[in-house]
Amino acid sequence: MAKQIENKSLQKLANLRRQHKGLITLMPLQTGGLLTDAAKEALTEFGDGYSVCDFCQGSLCNVTNPAIRNFAQEFLPQFLGCDVATITHGAREAKFTVMHSLAKAGDSILVDANRHYTTIVAAERVGLHVIDVPNSGYPEFRVDIDGYASLIKEKPPKLILLTYPDGNYGNLPDARRLGEIAQEYNVPYILNGAYAVGRMPVKMEEMGADFIIGSGHKSMASAGPVGVLGMKRKWEETVLKKSGIYSNKEIELLGCTVRGVPLITLMASFPHVKERVNNWDEQVSKAQWFSAELEKLGFKQLGEKPHRHDLLHFDTPVLYEISKRVRERGYFLYKELKARGIWGPQPGLTKSFKLSTFAADRQQLGFVIDSFKAILSKYN
Amino acid sequence: MAKQIENKSLQKLANLRRQHKGLITLMPLQTGGLLTDAAKEALTEFGDGYSVCDFCQGSLCNVTNPAIRNFAQEFLPQFLGCDVATITHGAREAKFTVMHSLAKAGDSILVDANRHYTTIVAAERVGLHVIDVPNSGYPEFRVDIDGYASLIKEKPPKLILLTYPDGNYGNLPDARRLGEIAQEYNVPYILNGAYAVGRMPVKMEEMGADFIIGSGHKSMASAGPVGVLGMKRKWEETVLKKSGIYSNKEIELLGCTVRGVPLITLMASFPHVKERVNNWDEQVSKAQWFSAELEKLGFKQLGEKPHRHDLLHFDTPVLYEISKRVRERGYFLYKELKARGIWGPQPGLTKSFKLSTFAADRQQLGFVIDSFKAILSKYN
Repeated sequence: MAKQIENKSLQKLANLRRQHKGLITLMPLQTGGLLTDAAKEALTEFGDGYSVCDFCQGSLCNVTNPAIRNFAQEFLPQFLGCDVATITHGAREAKFTVMHSLAKAGDSILVDANRHYTTIVAAERVGLHVIDVPNSGYPEFRVDIDGYASLIKEKPPKLILLTYPDGNYGNLPDARRLGEIAQEYNVPYILNGAYAVGRMPVKMEEMGADFIIGSGHKSMASAGPVGVLGMKRKWEETVLKKSGIYSNKEIELLGCTVRGVPLITLMASFPHVKERVNNWDEQVSKAQWFSAELEKLGFKQLGEKPHRHDLLHFDTPVLYEISKRVRERGYFLYKELKARGIWGPQPGLTKSFKLSTFAADRQQLGFVIDSFKAILSKYN
Repeated sequence: MAKQIENKSLQKLANLRRQHKGLITLMPLQTGGLLTDAAKEALTEFGDGYSVCDFCQGSLCNVTNPAIRNFAQEFLPQFLGCDVATITHGAREAKFTVMHSLAKAGDSILVDANRHYTTIVAAERVGLHVIDVPNSGYPEFRVDIDGYASLIKEKPPKLILLTYPDGNYGNLPDARRLGEIAQEYNVPYILNGAYAVGRMPVKMEEMGADFIIGSGHKSMASAGPVGVLGMKRKWEETVLKKSGIYSNKEIELLGCTVRGVPLITLMASFPHVKERVNNWDEQVSKAQWFSAELEKLGFKQLGEKPHRHDLLHFDTPVLYEISKRVRERGYFLYKELKARGIWGPQPGLTKSFKLSTFAADRQQLGFVIDSFKAILSKYN
């Protein structure tokens, strides 16, 4: 009997299905990672194991067939506005790589209070002491960039990091001002653009940063996980230092990072991604309109106003009130939306949740707004 | 004009094609990573960005939909013969994770002389001093396990590592004997089974190891990159230590590792992989027969004899002689084989190369043998 249950659950592995395929996607983690048609084809073409490495030349970013060298050494630096770029397993791995090569256990770094949790965990892995530059608190949670300057003066950190935008409120702090501060005090500056690179125009050099980090699966229409790391030329020898024994292998990358198909989807989507950042004004205007419409229903948008990013965080007391008196409790919202073909807030959330308007068009967003209206009147 | 060239090369990215698809595959890096049909379906189903994390529960190995928890916490430990298992970006990242959590800069470790280059680079990333346990040299390159004992006695290392089998000769050293030595001297023991786990039966506990490492793309019919790491319960708190700030996030894994489709292919192929290791005797017999047939043509098999793994290394002076007098030089062999639908030695190699018989059946291998014969008579 136990054996039968085991076999059944084993066989289930061979038939894995995704429940949210084909829905209108508002889930902030997902809207920037939907594959292009080119990436879908590449996924099938390069699915087998190590197929990216058929023509290995000793290191991933030197492979010419498929054209990884061209992508990583020419297109990517141009796109990121940096001197040197490489491929990482994701944004968090890029952060760890930079921290691990520039700082050592016991060193201090400054980060914005809105940073992703992985900024902290990456710092813990290196043994760093993390100091937060505070935000303004409810409801806008703005990070005051001048907070960096005063903290740097108190005790110069080894590194500073800014999340641009943060993944909680979609705030876009003054990254350029931080570039001036970093240069003034000569502190290496990491711009974490996991929700920027591939969605909106952003160049490392224009921000005055030393490093720029992007996420393929979050914002560059790629299968997960894959990330990009750009840097100034002066950091190449530190961060991309070669092995003392194997002269073509980069120590921090353990030789090669994404030796598989997520990188191929990143490359296949790149021509599209490079273009789509030019539509950013329309993305912002769509997000502002959507936010204003939802506020009319009693939702309250947190974070900066007017908002300048598709990632929106709402307090939704009207939905929370309903959840307190329905049988499904917090899950009613997820179910009601899913029944309408919409995938947004995490199952269970009604009090406060994040939505992203990046992947939906105005017609779909109109349908989402109407759906929220219909749900509210159904229960009120 | 420059702009036109750029656009052309940019557009090429949207149409990436793999040249070796559908060929008889003898390339050792590739034979264990060919996707099952179930994995091919899963690849399409979960291709989009972060789709694995639709129902995030805070950490990757706790996700129940798809059934990652079941896979990582039940099936995988059973399969690996260990107490606790987790998912890594690959075998090299698993090695780094263990080294980084158990040792610190300046510590020494012992590794076999046949180790993969990434063992060295992972150790360099931690700042470890690496001592090699020598092999017997040409032609068998056997690692004498008792070499570990004498080196441990000289100076106790922080860790020992054995490559089982190594990726150069396909030798299977006495891993069980090393388990006894590790226990006698109380030194943590990593078994790197990148070419074992998923191909042949191997259990950590039977070998007396503390850690076992496998590679999804190398030997578990998965898209790259993804790996598995199994360990004794006593190491869980060290290697999988939780963040001091985010109590459900493992520091060494930066929260979550393979948050994307390679993990899904690993899971989808698992029922097949679990079964295929039971055919190992036939795999070995096939490899021995193939090796003997090629030796009749003047090739010389290096590594252990009789050979006990599908990874075979040949010295091929007869092919090298030809390369010296043909127009294509070393590339003639790659071209001749490819024209016959065979993908094996790296382009350019004729003097010495590796082949793996894992993915080809006896009929296909017979065709490969005949093809080598035909190539030899064509040029002689």
